[in-house]
Amino acid sequence: MQAQFITLDGIDGAGKSTNLAVIQNWFETRNLPVLFTREPGGTPVGEALRKILLNPATQAGLRTETLMMFAARCQHIESVIAPALARGTNVVSDRFTDATFAYQGGGRGVPPADIAALENWVQGSLRPDLTILLDVPLKVSMQRIGRNRKKDRFEQEEAAFFTRVRAAYLNRAAADPGRYAVIDSNRTHEAVQQSIEAALNKHFRLRPKSLL
Amino acid sequence: MQAQFITLDGIDGAGKSTNLAVIQNWFETRNLPVLFTREPGGTPVGEALRKILLNPATQAGLRTETLMMFAARCQHIESVIAPALARGTNVVSDRFTDATFAYQGGGRGVPPADIAALENWVQGSLRPDLTILLDVPLKVSMQRIGRNRKKDRFEQEEAAFFTRVRAAYLNRAAADPGRYAVIDSNRTHEAVQQSIEAALNKHFRLRPKSLL
Repeated sequence: MQAQFITLDGIDGAGKSTNLAVIQNWFETRNLPVLFTREPGGTPVGEALRKILLNPATQAGLRTETLMMFAARCQHIESVIAPALARGTNVVSDRFTDATFAYQGGGRGVPPADIAALENWVQGSLRPDLTILLDVPLKVSMQRIGRNRKKDRFEQEEAAFFTRVRAAYLNRAAADPGRYAVIDSNRTHEAVQQSIEAALNKHFRLRPKSLL
Repeated sequence: MQAQFITLDGIDGAGKSTNLAVIQNWFETRNLPVLFTREPGGTPVGEALRKILLNPATQAGLRTETLMMFAARCQHIESVIAPALARGTNVVSDRFTDATFAYQGGGRGVPPADIAALENWVQGSLRPDLTILLDVPLKVSMQRIGRNRKKDRFEQEEAAFFTRVRAAYLNRAAADPGRYAVIDSNRTHEAVQQSIEAALNKHFRLRPKSLL
């Protein structure tokens, strides 16, 4: 089995940070080589772009923001993701292009066709093999965000925005069910953990020459 | 006559900085409203991106660099160039998309079709009405760069690189002679000044309802 490219995505407050540890543990238990990374960021250039993007004082327009996201992604793929996959290391990315379709597309209104054009420009044929989409009702995600940390620019956006973002994620998953594992993360940590592990087991077992 | 979008371009050391003052003086003498700006930069986001791009320590790959150039350009158009043109102010930009075709394209090998795709994505139908291309033999430009200032990352590139960049500029001008004024800047300041003023006179007089 070739090294797999797995992404973890979902609206802010869906529980990505908590559940990254679950995924990490799954790979460690099975002694599978894996690299964890995140977007935007994952490289020095990407982190510099992330800083500009997450700064509440940033005056970047919507299309500029979209290009910066893809610039960070381009570097991320070239210097981190593609080399790791090429040497047989699985890659787990905390957010990827689904987030651009959801936030800049569904949330802010960049036409999906424009995002798809940049996706092709930057990624060529690279797409995630599996996307674990953590889903929670908006109310729960807002409570989690409010409770846990200082809000950044994206998190200050209004509820209507996150409603559109969540819908965009779910629509993308519905259109390509083979690639997405949609996981209800409005449950106990243990229940969510079991679902994530089941999704990983299913993904890695489904293919011939399984590593398991 | 609608407000005109004019760009000044050419390889490093071609004399852009010196001759910006000539253009400025031409507009001031005629009392024509004009805004001077530059790329990459021209906006807070653009200046932040410029800083990342010009830093010799930057590890941005070629395609990432191209996307960052267009991200800066996108913000530049949206917040500076388009609003100025819309209110009837002529705009002069120190570098624009020709520089991307010349440096990232001719110099570094990004396929022109890939650059054209981003040009369309970012600019829609916006193109310069006039591009003043300052041209000097490589030897002269290298001497000027060496003499005048600290070299940044781009200026450290080898002579072969600048040869390709210069050829790309000249090829673009040859393919669209109506838009470009190619000016031999390997002459006295006065001679170059006269050529620039002649190009501006011609451009503004050629159109109906001239402002002159």
